[in-house]
Amino acid sequence: MEVTNEMTCELVDHMGSDVTVVNAARRSMRVTKEEWSNAETGLVRSLIKNGHGSPFEFVTFMFDVDIPIFVAREVFRHRNSSFNEESARYKARRNKMWLPSSDEWRTQVGNAMSYEYKEWDGDKAFADTMLRNGYEDCIRVYNTLLERGVAREIARTIIPVGNYTSFLWKVDLRNLTNFLVLRNAPQAQYEIQKMAKKVEEAFQEVCPNIYSIWNEEGRPRLAAADE
Amino acid sequence: MEVTNEMTCELVDHMGSDVTVVNAARRSMRVTKEEWSNAETGLVRSLIKNGHGSPFEFVTFMFDVDIPIFVAREVFRHRNSSFNEESARYKARRNKMWLPSSDEWRTQVGNAMSYEYKEWDGDKAFADTMLRNGYEDCIRVYNTLLERGVAREIARTIIPVGNYTSFLWKVDLRNLTNFLVLRNAPQAQYEIQKMAKKVEEAFQEVCPNIYSIWNEEGRPRLAAADE
Amino acid sequence: MEVTNEMTCELVDHMGSDVTVVNAARRSMRVTKEEWSNAETGLVRSLIKNGHGSPFEFVTFMFDVDIPIFVAREVFRHRNSSFNEESARYKARRNKMWLPSSDEWRTQVGNAMSYEYKEWDGDKAFADTMLRNGYEDCIRVYNTLLERGVAREIARTIIPVGNYTSFLWKVDLRNLTNFLVLRNAPQAQYEIQKMAKKVEEAFQEVCPNIYSIWNEEGRPRLAAADE
Amino acid sequence: MEVTNEMTCELVDHMGSDVTVVNAARRSMRVTKEEWSNAETGLVRSLIKNGHGSPFEFVTFMFDVDIPIFVAREVFRHRNSSFNEESARYKARRNKMWLPSSDEWRTQVGNAMSYEYKEWDGDKAFADTMLRNGYEDCIRVYNTLLERGVAREIARTIIPVGNYTSFLWKVDLRNLTNFLVLRNAPQAQYEIQKMAKKVEEAFQEVCPNIYSIWNEEGRPRLAAADE
Repeated sequence: MEVTNEMTCELVDHMGSDVTVVNAARRSMRVTKEEWSNAETGLVRSLIKNGHGSPFEFVTFMFDVDIPIFVAREVFRHRNSSFNEESARYKARRNKMWLPSSDEWRTQVGNAMSYEYKEWDGDKAFADTMLRNGYEDCIRVYNTLLERGVAREIARTIIPVGNYTSFLWKVDLRNLTNFLVLRNAPQAQYEIQKMAKKVEEAFQEVCPNIYSIWNEEGRPRLAAADE
Repeated sequence: MEVTNEMTCELVDHMGSDVTVVNAARRSMRVTKEEWSNAETGLVRSLIKNGHGSPFEFVTFMFDVDIPIFVAREVFRHRNSSFNEESARYKARRNKMWLPSSDEWRTQVGNAMSYEYKEWDGDKAFADTMLRNGYEDCIRVYNTLLERGVAREIARTIIPVGNYTSFLWKVDLRNLTNFLVLRNAPQAQYEIQKMAKKVEEAFQEVCPNIYSIWNEEGRPRLAAADE
Repeated sequence: MEVTNEMTCELVDHMGSDVTVVNAARRSMRVTKEEWSNAETGLVRSLIKNGHGSPFEFVTFMFDVDIPIFVAREVFRHRNSSFNEESARYKARRNKMWLPSSDEWRTQVGNAMSYEYKEWDGDKAFADTMLRNGYEDCIRVYNTLLERGVAREIARTIIPVGNYTSFLWKVDLRNLTNFLVLRNAPQAQYEIQKMAKKVEEAFQEVCPNIYSIWNEEGRPRLAAADE
Repeated sequence: MEVTNEMTCELVDHMGSDVTVVNAARRSMRVTKEEWSNAETGLVRSLIKNGHGSPFEFVTFMFDVDIPIFVAREVFRHRNSSFNEESARYKARRNKMWLPSSDEWRTQVGNAMSYEYKEWDGDKAFADTMLRNGYEDCIRVYNTLLERGVAREIARTIIPVGNYTSFLWKVDLRNLTNFLVLRNAPQAQYEIQKMAKKVEEAFQEVCPNIYSIWNEEGRPRLAAADE
């Protein structure tokens, strides 16, 4: 059994860049630019301020993601995306399980809609062992059922949501920023924040100018006519 | 701990009926009918045959669903839908776990893309006990971590995907038929077939005429201009 | 030829109400309310403030709309919707044309992204006659081509975008509010504002409590996990 | 005034190729291929036959399109797409109008849902002149209103739907094939068929192997779990 607290999210392909967004926006005026110039900063700032999000849909990102099921379930809620995930019906689960590092054990304080999370001051060695052993018991049940010939689709029911799953994820820049607003945010579960930070690095790498302006403008949602 | 093999899927509200689809289709001709008549059968048959699916979007269904996580994950892949699910961050998980009935223990034969599933002829009493005990161990770890003050969002990682989750699901008739084509089908996992049969009953109840015609036409996907 | 400046948008059906949103939101806690109480105000306010838009998708509106093509084209940009429109291939166009009232003749000042519109102080009687005559000439060409046997799908190419078209529109409350943010707003074309005001009346009628709270909170976009 | 019957649809960018689809599909088995081999033919054929459409979403196309408004309105009905169009509020319309070639003048025979179109045997020279003159009259009204200071958003109402508009269109391969099923088909208006043939050329260029297999399999819709 492999235990880890890593969230893998690698950019494997992309289409478009800063200038793509500018040209999609300038299409309303029938203007095309060959490359980014400082004059574009005002345009992009204005798009972001006024909620003209549709030009941002023309930049596309494709990620290879490997995260625990409980985090993946949150990612899959972002419906304006494409996903292809490994299947527990077609392939046996990997014995890769999520385990928090010592400082990631948290406790929850406050009420619903306004929870806060603080470092847990309990017996971490005990909790760590308990969770590891729990995972190992599950894997033992899973493997035994498989060995005896039970179908993978049934045996998997004992697999905990801390088990890792991998998937390809394609998302456009407009929906990517909205993912960041929701998921690289204090109220999001820390584990999806870790993944979202990698998504954010890809944004900065592919569209450095737009990334700067979006941050200067306070990281708003980029809406579109379909919302 | 409660164990069950039930898939709950109750129709809690709906909008529209057979005649709604007819009127959406007849809008192209600027015609409105007060109620269904036999003359509509030919129109609906023609819509289905020719892949004019958009009129079917005007009938809407809302379900209250309670199914295991491993089945729910398949339902959530149907992106043209609305979902609100209970949250393991806001509320502790219920101790309700999926356990197959004796004849639901299956084995998998054949190759990927063409798997078949047959009743498993292994030691079901052994498997049943093993799965139950595995679940109970997980619940014990979960409860112990919660009692010690670990946040629900961390403790939940030991919860197996056989645990039940509940959600509201809103879907229109076009997407509902496509759900049925994929999920009330032999190649789908038996457990989602059980849920899909309840969805199908709701279809028949709300739109009995269209349901008949759709079956007579061989249950095709109902496409639309956006696909 | 009929000329008008009216934008028709009638609520013909709906599903859900204030309490539907509350119950979709409370599903995360597995709580259901029978009816709206003042205690729900704080919950809805919190959903709106924190951008938890998905519960608003469970209220659905269906409108019967009759507006000019140039306005309809803006409505059809709202992709999270269902539309069925009259077809100029299946049925000849009606001779119903948009003509501004005297105070609706506008002029455009300022630059792109920050245009303002003011009442036009030109010769309105002249402009009115010119536009009417232009429409009548188009209708004459259209009818002549049809009479001579040209297919409707070809003859229609002379029809101006001021011609009226009618369609059914189904949209959920989350997307409806986003429609209002964009279209019942000063920067939107005045004609779509007129239609949007009717959409807003339907919102107030179906969900009076949520409508009040949404206004108190400054009419923000209601985002969801898929944006 | 420029008159033409051309439908412009240029591929300006794309992401992915044949092997991208294969790797998205093989993700369910956690397998990655570096390049296309003949072994992939069976896999893709099986995906197409069994309606596993989601892997096709990972290939993305971006087109620059210039077509008449009456054709553009049909394209915009494909909601799983991104569009940015020139705006008649921001920029005056171009005097570019659609005029059929001599053999494109058609007549309509049969009934709704089963119309057929045949070459029109009327006086084409007369019809051609009538349509040209009609267009020119509209442009004259439009320009006069603009010259007198009427806002572009009002003056445009006299513009016929035969006027050209240009837009950027981003669409994935799954939705592109569904576009082709509906639009490069005998029942579609001939003018959108002309555009769809250019879309089909781009498909063949970017994914030659998948294009062949899709044709061998009878050009079915490629569905996905969200339909």
